[in-house]
Amino acid sequence: MAKTPETEHPVKAFGWAARDASGVFSPFNFSRRATGEKDVQFKVLYCGVCHSDLHMSKNEWGVTQYPIVPGHEIVGVVTEVGSKVEKVKVGDKVGVGCLVGSCRSCDMCSQDLENYCSKQILTYSTTYTDGTITYGGYSDVMVADEHFIVRWPENLPLDAGAPLLCAGITTYSPLRYFGLDKPGIHVGIVGLGGLGHVGVKFAKAFGAKVTVISTSENKRKEAIEKLGADAFINSRDPEQMQAAAGTMDGIIDTVSAVHPVVPLMNLVKPHGKVVMVGVPEKPLEFSTFSLIMGRKTLSGSGIGGLKETQEMVDFAAKHNILADVEVIPMDYINTAMERLLKTDVKYRFVIDIGSSSRSA
Amino acid sequence: MAKTPETEHPVKAFGWAARDASGVFSPFNFSRRATGEKDVQFKVLYCGVCHSDLHMSKNEWGVTQYPIVPGHEIVGVVTEVGSKVEKVKVGDKVGVGCLVGSCRSCDMCSQDLENYCSKQILTYSTTYTDGTITYGGYSDVMVADEHFIVRWPENLPLDAGAPLLCAGITTYSPLRYFGLDKPGIHVGIVGLGGLGHVGVKFAKAFGAKVTVISTSENKRKEAIEKLGADAFINSRDPEQMQAAAGTMDGIIDTVSAVHPVVPLMNLVKPHGKVVMVGVPEKPLEFSTFSLIMGRKTLSGSGIGGLKETQEMVDFAAKHNILADVEVIPMDYINTAMERLLKTDVKYRFVIDIGSSSRSA
Repeated sequence: MAKTPETEHPVKAFGWAARDASGVFSPFNFSRRATGEKDVQFKVLYCGVCHSDLHMSKNEWGVTQYPIVPGHEIVGVVTEVGSKVEKVKVGDKVGVGCLVGSCRSCDMCSQDLENYCSKQILTYSTTYTDGTITYGGYSDVMVADEHFIVRWPENLPLDAGAPLLCAGITTYSPLRYFGLDKPGIHVGIVGLGGLGHVGVKFAKAFGAKVTVISTSENKRKEAIEKLGADAFINSRDPEQMQAAAGTMDGIIDTVSAVHPVVPLMNLVKPHGKVVMVGVPEKPLEFSTFSLIMGRKTLSGSGIGGLKETQEMVDFAAKHNILADVEVIPMDYINTAMERLLKTDVKYRFVIDIGSSSRSA
Repeated sequence: MAKTPETEHPVKAFGWAARDASGVFSPFNFSRRATGEKDVQFKVLYCGVCHSDLHMSKNEWGVTQYPIVPGHEIVGVVTEVGSKVEKVKVGDKVGVGCLVGSCRSCDMCSQDLENYCSKQILTYSTTYTDGTITYGGYSDVMVADEHFIVRWPENLPLDAGAPLLCAGITTYSPLRYFGLDKPGIHVGIVGLGGLGHVGVKFAKAFGAKVTVISTSENKRKEAIEKLGADAFINSRDPEQMQAAAGTMDGIIDTVSAVHPVVPLMNLVKPHGKVVMVGVPEKPLEFSTFSLIMGRKTLSGSGIGGLKETQEMVDFAAKHNILADVEVIPMDYINTAMERLLKTDVKYRFVIDIGSSSRSA
């Protein structure tokens, strides 16, 4: 008899899954593998709701394997460790982000850049080394190789900290890699959502001058007064855009909808960098002229490696950087997804998995 | 009485100018300024015909000031120097490239990157500091501030060397800046025209492995046997493109027509760089996904600063790098432009100004 998600592994697990491109979630009984010698098993307490979860649950990128249990901003408490695990012990708080596997031997892996390994295994809806499909953190128990486990800093709250595992590292990594992490640097953050609001906090913690660029005038007050940005530009206003032309060292563009990029190129100085971290569904346009005039670069950056993710949560703990979250019960997920689609959340939903009933 | 181009300055000059967007050239009497204390006056001997000359003579970028005397690959022999000139003396061979002025004080200028100065003055069709319009090298006499004069290496031929002043530096500079100038590096050169063929030669001289990427299968033999490229990819063949996926460290894209860039992003390794040096008239498309997967960059690069241009001609002289040229008389320019439009030249027209009759 063919194995089912419920019987293919020995450890019973319960989560919420979408079964088709409707993206509607419902309770789902499945299973997790037995804890291998390098594995860490943990009870999931909180899991952030990333915009990717929404894209993937509706198969908008065309790669979804159903049923899908999303969730890659996962924190919890260790319940079992394999015999060779050195990183953590039972009772420790831990996190898992977007990755649960990679080849561990390529150029990228050897540079601690598992996030750019061409054989990376995503935390959900990807085929694992044992041939089964990975399930994410919208579930009560998690198992992962210790290499992909992040040690959770003692003083970092679990609920508001969970989104750092995707939203946090996605903005932290390009700020670091592209040299936008220094006092005196002027950084633009495009889009004030789950990624953008954390990006503002990291950039400020690095000592940068931060300008939020958004199409929503009503985010001006929030950006400056609540998040501590130094300035705000309404990108629909050509005068505001012109006034800021050539003033920024770099921009992190977090917008995952189709939007104009050429006006952003004009905001950066010569040698300025515009880094895309969102994934719009269609190609965007660029002008070679706007790249050539000032030897500017348009780049992309995707999450971060495990070493850098650990560094990032440690930095967040030290500088008291957290996401602004709305904690929800598991059975609120369908409503939460509808609200997320309308960007009706400030700024990240986090599912309280630990307190959610197993039989929702 | 209003000054005309013929009377505004004391030094009589003769060239060929386009008078309107037809781009048709005809003889043109104008004038050059008296040699200022920091100026160098020289007799023009050869001038390369750049694709920009064609764009500009037809006002295809919308910034042309008529009459236009193009030409920014200019070499000749010094006939007069100002009292404070230190760089060259009468009788020296010199060159002038795309620039004859810049602010000399901004961040870019202070880094020897006059080519990225926002107040740069182009060699032709630009308003100079004295309010007159600049005229380029399709003319018998040239005057320029010594800062913008390149000392011509003794053993570097004038005719086949002239195109280095634009085509050469345009490919040399990004190869250097983006770290594509080392043995063992795999460089792709897209487009085998005026820029591309010189780019292949520089990349080979740096010790790189060079792959030419072109839509023209009939350039395969030429690229490998004549120019010394290591490999050739017909970009219209998806199998050839797929076979080379992820193998290149960087690509210099010299194509100035609208063309697909996403397939080029797939040719480079993680951290790979695709550098645009051509200026298509319309925006191109990119995919954020192809940038994010591997933290790749799409950049632009425009000519080079004066210091680097000098370094480049010295390097070319040492390594015997020249453009492949077809030397033409001045009065052939209209035919040459028609042939250039059809890319019917291997690979650069160079006008023999010195031997062309003043009253054509």
